[in-house]
Order: sequence, then structure tokens, then C-alpha cells
Amino acid sequence: MDEFELIRVVVEHLGDRAQGPWITLGPGDDAAVIAQRVDHQAVASIDTVVAGVHFPAHAAPIDVGYRALMVGLSDLAAMAAYPRYVLVALTIDTPEPAWLAELAQGMAQAATACDTYLCGGNFARGDLSITVSVHGDVPQGRAITRQGARAGDRIYVSGELGGAAACVRQRDFDFAGGLNDLQARYMRPQARFDVVEALRAHASAAIDVSDGLSADLHHLCQASGVRANLCAVDIPVFPGAQLDDALCGGDDYEILCTSSQPMPGMTCIGEIERGQGVYLDGAPLPARGYNHFVD
Amino acid sequence: MDEFELIRVVVEHLGDRAQGPWITLGPGDDAAVIAQRVDHQAVASIDTVVAGVHFPAHAAPIDVGYRALMVGLSDLAAMAAYPRYVLVALTIDTPEPAWLAELAQGMAQAATACDTYLCGGNFARGDLSITVSVHGDVPQGRAITRQGARAGDRIYVSGELGGAAACVRQRDFDFAGGLNDLQARYMRPQARFDVVEALRAHASAAIDVSDGLSADLHHLCQASGVRANLCAVDIPVFPGAQLDDALCGGDDYEILCTSSQPMPGMTCIGEIERGQGVYLDGAPLPARGYNHFVD
Repeated sequence: MDEFELIRVVVEHLGDRAQGPWITLGPGDDAAVIAQRVDHQAVASIDTVVAGVHFPAHAAPIDVGYRALMVGLSDLAAMAAYPRYVLVALTIDTPEPAWLAELAQGMAQAATACDTYLCGGNFARGDLSITVSVHGDVPQGRAITRQGARAGDRIYVSGELGGAAACVRQRDFDFAGGLNDLQARYMRPQARFDVVEALRAHASAAIDVSDGLSADLHHLCQASGVRANLCAVDIPVFPGAQLDDALCGGDDYEILCTSSQPMPGMTCIGEIERGQGVYLDGAPLPARGYNHFVD
Repeated sequence: MDEFELIRVVVEHLGDRAQGPWITLGPGDDAAVIAQRVDHQAVASIDTVVAGVHFPAHAAPIDVGYRALMVGLSDLAAMAAYPRYVLVALTIDTPEPAWLAELAQGMAQAATACDTYLCGGNFARGDLSITVSVHGDVPQGRAITRQGARAGDRIYVSGELGGAAACVRQRDFDFAGGLNDLQARYMRPQARFDVVEALRAHASAAIDVSDGLSADLHHLCQASGVRANLCAVDIPVFPGAQLDDALCGGDDYEILCTSSQPMPGMTCIGEIERGQGVYLDGAPLPARGYNHFVD
């Protein structure tokens, strides 16, 4: 099967996710053409997941595809942006059409869940990795960055933390009988576009929890030039996970934000004050979390 | 050196190419924010180059970075779009700061040459590859696709073909003394944004010559539902290359287009008629060229 037949397999299994109302020209040309919304800014990010590093190589391709897209899309939610389109670059050594078809189905599931489209891609030969380039928009000037946290703001997080990390810590990667709850947190994360309206209305700063609560809160505090005080008992820990999973484990893709207002549907876990660093119940909390080329 | 220090090295050596007039928020947050132009559509493509497949692993990183960006950007020129911004995902096993700094300098050179910016990226650990996601725009409805060629149009190509292919055919990858002319065609291609205005004014269809003239002309003819008749003596062959390099070798990144009007600065190499397939001096020309997973 040559490259062009493989592309056909993927596009076929993307189904209605390869074309959409704002995708003027989808896969198959030198580039895709996408309609832009007036009075909006583009928001863009790129992420790579590598087999054996970011996901178990034996995982079901439908979950691999789903997760790769969700991991990328989560960065848009963290900016209070909604997605418009996604490009995917797949590097693979020996592509099996059935495997690719399932991968594409997983990507289509994630795209459907986030109301977006996959309008372009690329195949290259090499060790298995998936690079996802995600593109959304925000009304002019309404992106929420990591830089706006101010003394007096409270710290909020969506959902529960640590589930994905507990799966990774226990190396609980036997997926043969279907995914248990912790495995599902790891392989089937959900980018939190459901909190975008609340972020736009109230948040002063936001980041998604991809490296771990402590590491990502450090990033936010550094960018904003503030100190964070966390309260351990308030941190929502995913059932079956430990507090340390919630503090130091990545891969949850929940949204961490600061606000001077209550954040509906999110949990208050601490507050911002002047200074620097992250503290847990008064003690310094180091930025432990996922960091390429170190761990 | 951890991931965040490596990012600092890259961003530092991108210099003024990490921020620009329309880059509202550059590298360092969950995503970049980019201003959009009114009455324009977004044009987007993604490409991966893998060490040992798409470029020699021992090549100078300044050329590797330059080439990766140009190869991606060429797809925008082929749509008659100008670039706005680029995202880069780098997969690398043992990143050396000096190597990364040079890679970033090469990317900055290409971005400067094409008047664009690198506003986001990602590091992952694995075998060396570079994925470039390129984003441009066109005035509403003005993208040139592969689909518009009509009987009676003439076929034009920019520049000269086969130089990069001659370098690859001869496996002339000893770059120690600096690049000779053929090596420079391979490692230092130039995306042809200088023909974008002519494409917008006159072209009915366009594609960039990345897989090879015969393969890419087949793509264009298939998309347009037409037949192409090429005239061998008219094909501009790069000095030191052979006609077969020009016909079947990729990596030139010249622009191939069709038009019912003269195309200033381009060479007429044949004409379009009703039917299908590509013919050279009346004989069928197969679609030989670069195809992943086959050659």
C-alpha cells in the first residue's frame, strides 16, 4: 500500500470530520483552506506524542488517536479558545491499514467531542509518533494566558486530578479487558472546552494540567510573578489515586486557573499572594512533574 | 539541560523571528495568539522531515532547520498564500544546545526569507525528526488549488528542475567543504513566494514540485480531470542534472502551474487537453517520484 492509499484509508475513517462548515478545502491539496471568523484571533499550538514515551506502544489505536488529539486540543481550552481545525503528522514504520483506520476513528471521536475537524496531515516513515497541530480562535483580546494571576485571586481546578498519574505510577497498562477508571483517565482524557465560557467570564490566568499540578502551577506563578498557596485537603483527588499523583502527575488535562470570582463547576484549591513559588499547607512545593530529557 | 532550558536556547536563537507584528503572543504559553486579516482565509499544511529519510543525519543543523521550514512553507506558495506563522515540533534523542542553536538559526533564516515567524513549538524524545506546521492566508476565495486546470491552458514551471534530485541520485552528501550547487539545491531550497502574485493573477491550478515533476503533474491532472502534454526540450533542467532528474526527482520546491495567460518569469513546458494522464513528447509518462512506503 503506498502513501496515497494510506491517506485514503485515514480520510475515509475520519468520516465527516475531514470536512466541515468552515473547512473550505479539506485534505488532498498542498494545503487546507479554512474560513476565519471576524473579530477573532487565531490560537495555535503543536504537540507530539511518541510511542513508548507518551503512550504504551501496544495501546489500542483508537485510544492512541483519541488521546493524541485531546492532548493537543487541551492547550486551546487552556487559552479559553474553541478549536477550529487540526493537522496531524504521523510518523510510522510499517503502517497497517486496519491499525490506521482505527487510529483515524479515535481521532474522529475526539474531533467530534470537541466540535472540530482534521483538514490536513502528513505521513513519514520512522518510529511511531503523532504530532498534532491545533488551531482555534478567541474573540479579539479575550485569550486567557498564564500571565494574569494577581494577589488576592483564588486558584481553581476543573475535575479531579491524579487518575492518569496513578495509572502510570502503577504501570497499569494491561488494556486487554477494556479500560478501567484509571486507565480511562490516562488514555481517554477530555479537553475541558466546557469551562471556556467561565474562563472568559472570570479567569485572570489559566493553564492545563499536563505536566502535573505542582509543575504547571509553578509555570503559571512564574509567568504572573506571584506566589501560590495550596490547601492539601481541598485538592480533588481522583478515586483510586493518591495526593502525590494529583500534585506531581501529569496527563490529567484538567484546567487550572486563577480568578477573583467564584468559578462555577470548578474547585477552589488555594489562593494567590505576592511573592514567588508554590506552597502546600505553608511548605514549599517543588515543581515536580513531567519534564522531557530529565526524568 | 531540561526541556525548558532547551526551549530557551531555541527561542533565543530564533531572535526576532519568535515575535512579530501579527504575533500577539509568541512562545511560552499553552498556545500562541495570532492576529488574523479581515477578508482572508487561513491556509494550513503540515510536513515532517526525518533524519536519514528526508535529509542526511550528518548535515549541518543550520541547513536542516532552514530546509525543514522551506519544505513546509513551499506548500503555502503552491496555494498562492503568503505565510503568517509556523509551529515546529522537534523530536530528538540527545539534544545538544549548540546543535539546537544552529538549527534555530537555520529556521530563522528561512523565516526571514519568507517574512514569517515561529511562534510555537514542542520538544519530544525520540529519533530525530522535525515537523513543521505552516499557516498563511489568502484573500477570500483566491487560493489556487490543484483542481482548476482546463483544456487549452499551458503548463508552466518556475526555476529549474532536477538539481536536488541529481544530488540525491549521486548520493553527493559530503558537505564538509560547503555546499556545491547541486547540494545547495537539495539542502537550501527556496519557497517561491515571488510567484504568488502571478499565480493569483493568472493561474488556474498549481502545485509545488516536491515529489517530482511527473508525480506532481499527475496529481494536478487527476485533481483537475485533464491530460497534460509535456515537451521534453522545453523542460528547464538545472545545470549538472539530467532530464530524468527533472522529471522524476523531488525536492526542488519549484511551482508547477497551469494558466491560459503567459506566466511572467516561468517557463512553458507543455499544455493541458481533455483526457487523463501525463504525456512526454506524445508517450505516456508514468508517475515516478517520491512516495513513502514504496521506494
